[in-house]
Amino acid sequence: MSAIEGLTGELRRLPGIGTRTALRLSYHLVKGPKEDIRRLARALAEVAERIRPCSRCGNYCSSDLCSVCRDPSRDRSMICVVEEAYEVGAIERAGRYGGLFHVLGGRLSPLDGVGPDELDIGGLLKRVRDPAEVPKEVILATNASVEGEATAVYLESLLRPFPVRVTRLARGIPVGSDLEYVDGTTIAEALAGRREVREDA
Amino acid sequence: MSAIEGLTGELRRLPGIGTRTALRLSYHLVKGPKEDIRRLARALAEVAERIRPCSRCGNYCSSDLCSVCRDPSRDRSMICVVEEAYEVGAIERAGRYGGLFHVLGGRLSPLDGVGPDELDIGGLLKRVRDPAEVPKEVILATNASVEGEATAVYLESLLRPFPVRVTRLARGIPVGSDLEYVDGTTIAEALAGRREVREDA
Repeated sequence: MSAIEGLTGELRRLPGIGTRTALRLSYHLVKGPKEDIRRLARALAEVAERIRPCSRCGNYCSSDLCSVCRDPSRDRSMICVVEEAYEVGAIERAGRYGGLFHVLGGRLSPLDGVGPDELDIGGLLKRVRDPAEVPKEVILATNASVEGEATAVYLESLLRPFPVRVTRLARGIPVGSDLEYVDGTTIAEALAGRREVREDA
Repeated sequence: MSAIEGLTGELRRLPGIGTRTALRLSYHLVKGPKEDIRRLARALAEVAERIRPCSRCGNYCSSDLCSVCRDPSRDRSMICVVEEAYEVGAIERAGRYGGLFHVLGGRLSPLDGVGPDELDIGGLLKRVRDPAEVPKEVILATNASVEGEATAVYLESLLRPFPVRVTRLARGIPVGSDLEYVDGTTIAEALAGRREVREDA
């Protein structure tokens, strides 16, 4: 049984997976075809060997520059700053952004021991200063949490000396949601950010 | 990104893990130390190479016979029949059973295409008939679900010709639970199975 216990122990280290789920997953894998286990092991090994952060934006990729940074059709005048690399995917799936990204690798969170030095802020400033990149706009797409807001405020203060437009994603009512279930702070933000219905008028 | 997508796809095949959870897990693994990924991959490979069902009871083990079947201190006159191998662990953890096990590998469920031939019923009958094992009691510890009950009823009918006591785990109020939250069927079973408070009297 020790191999199953070993696997259960490894699975339990993953976020959101407790002892029972880890056990259930282990036994599911053991019960299924061996090939399924081997495929998962290979997929993990592949990620361990091949995935690294993009040397420019910090997005994950399997070469020196990520596919976004290498894509000549992307708009190089915009940098969208996100906390984590998986948020690049969330924005890409929305299909409305054609610029570049910059991954901070987290958010300012003094209680968790995350200060400016733990984030890739130096890389962002280097890109803003870089005459080869010359971004016109930096979109601060950190999360709408207390830490995400604090990070955005801090970045804005650092970016102020540069001739670059600094924006933040709009706050408001999520599409498809009922007002009844939207919290007061969001409604207040949505009111403050209200827009003319006929903007073209 | 394709290595991450590959890993996400493999993780999504696991039970209870949807696209978002699979993505979150993939990125968690990518963000952490490579050694964590490699250790998980090794634990999986270990399970794929070493774990097999016990040739006698169907419990998972890394040799021909499982640790329970090999243990000379276990009471060989009792066989506890469970649906899945992980239920052996649940009963072992209770620490009150010293007999042997038999793993069916599922439960009768015609809607899912699981009939008697899909379960290791032949192995159980062989053990009951085996003059070397001579079990005195078979405990049907299939689950308290409709399929588990049907499986128990079916097994009982097959075991009736043999000189073996066939029992079923008691139904009743789970220890530590409030009557208020216990469903009516369970209360009815607990009433039907009520016991004298002073059994020794």
